[in-house]
Amino acid sequence: MEGYKIIEVKESVFANNNKEADELRGKLKDQGIFLLNLMSSPGSGKTTTLKGTIAALKDDLKIGVMEADIDSDVDAATIEKTGAKVIQLHTGGMCHLDAGMTSQGLESLGTESLDLVILENIGNLVCPAEFDTGAVKNAMILSVPEGHDKPLKYPLMFSICDALIINKIDVMPYFDFDLDACVKYAKERNPDIQIFPISAKTGEGMEAWENWLKEQVLDWQKK
Amino acid sequence: MEGYKIIEVKESVFANNNKEADELRGKLKDQGIFLLNLMSSPGSGKTTTLKGTIAALKDDLKIGVMEADIDSDVDAATIEKTGAKVIQLHTGGMCHLDAGMTSQGLESLGTESLDLVILENIGNLVCPAEFDTGAVKNAMILSVPEGHDKPLKYPLMFSICDALIINKIDVMPYFDFDLDACVKYAKERNPDIQIFPISAKTGEGMEAWENWLKEQVLDWQKK
Repeated sequence: MEGYKIIEVKESVFANNNKEADELRGKLKDQGIFLLNLMSSPGSGKTTTLKGTIAALKDDLKIGVMEADIDSDVDAATIEKTGAKVIQLHTGGMCHLDAGMTSQGLESLGTESLDLVILENIGNLVCPAEFDTGAVKNAMILSVPEGHDKPLKYPLMFSICDALIINKIDVMPYFDFDLDACVKYAKERNPDIQIFPISAKTGEGMEAWENWLKEQVLDWQKK
Repeated sequence: MEGYKIIEVKESVFANNNKEADELRGKLKDQGIFLLNLMSSPGSGKTTTLKGTIAALKDDLKIGVMEADIDSDVDAATIEKTGAKVIQLHTGGMCHLDAGMTSQGLESLGTESLDLVILENIGNLVCPAEFDTGAVKNAMILSVPEGHDKPLKYPLMFSICDALIINKIDVMPYFDFDLDACVKYAKERNPDIQIFPISAKTGEGMEAWENWLKEQVLDWQKK
C-alpha cells in the first residue's frame, strides 16, 4: 500500500482563473509557502530532476510535491521514496491544471509547515502554459533529444517561464542540439528567463538550479 | 517566399465531432484518399520520420502533408523540400485538431489526385487523442529518450493508435529504455497495435513502417 493519496481534481467552476490564481498566490504569501509550477513534455526528465532537487534541498527546506497526471501514479511512487510529502493529482483526462485544481491539491496535500511545494504539471508544452496555477514561479524542462527549436514552436510556454532547465546534456554528443541557438530562441521569447543546462542523471549543473530555487523560496518568505 | 500556404483553422461549430469525423472518412473513401493522423510529443522526430517516409513512398503514391502547429511554420519549410504538397495549419493556440479543422485543412491543401495525406498533429500526447480527426488510421511516435513507461502515463493515446513508431533507437545505448517493457505496456493498452522500432536518422527499421503504410493506403483504395 502506497503512503500517498490520490486526488481526483475537477475543473474549477470559477470563470475567472486569473483572479483565482492571484488569490491563491496571496494566500501562499501569507503562509510563507513557495509554489513552483514545473512543466515539460512527456519524458523530459521532470521526475528525475525533482528527485535530485529534493535530495539537495531537503535539509534546508520542507518540501511537498503534487504529481499531476491523467490517471497513473508512477511518478508519485518514485517521488515518495525521496522522503518528500507527496500526493498524486488525477485530472481525469484534462490536459492542464488551473488555479482551482491546484488549490484542491494543496488542501489535500496539507501545507502546514512546508516551505516549498512543487507542482509537477501534466506533460504537455501547450495547454499548461495557458492557465495560471497560482504558482509563485513557473519553470520548464526541455531535454536535449527534443531539439533546440522548441522555443520557436511553443512560444507561450517559454514566455511564461521564469526558469528553463535544459536537461540530458550528457547525451549532447549524440544529438544535433545547438545550445547557443536554444538559448537565443528562448531569450527572444523571454529576455529574463534563467537558463540552467543540467544532467539530472549525472548531476552536472544541478547545483546552479538548486541554488536559484532556494534563493527564490527564501526571498518569497522574507519579503 | 515559401511555396506553401498558412491556414488559420478554427474550432468546429458542430457539436458532434464523431459524426463529422465519420462523414469526412466517408468522403475520403469515395475519393480514394487515405488520411493518416500522426501524433507525438514535441521533439520525438515526427518531421524527420515524415521526410524519410515521403522519400521512400513518393514514387508510388502522390503525397500531401498538413503541418499543424500553434503558430510557427518551421516544419512546413522542412517538408516542402521533399517535394510533397504541403500546407501549414495554425490552430491559434489550440492543442488539438478536430474533424472540422481537418476538413478545412484538406480543402485548402487541395486533395485532387492525392493518394495519401499525412496530418502532422500538434505535439502533445494528451489532447489530440481525444478528438477523431476523420483520419483512416492513427499513428504515433514515441522516441527512446522519452522513456518506456509512456504507455502507462498516456493510455488513451496508445489505445487509439493503429501504429506505434518507436524512434531514435540509434541512441538506445545511452538511455535506460526497455524496449520489451514498452512493447508490453503498449499491447496492454491496445493488443492490435503495430509496433515499428526505427531510427529516422540512420534509416534503420524505416522500411517495415513504410511498407505497412503503403499497404494500408492500397487496401483503402481497393476496398
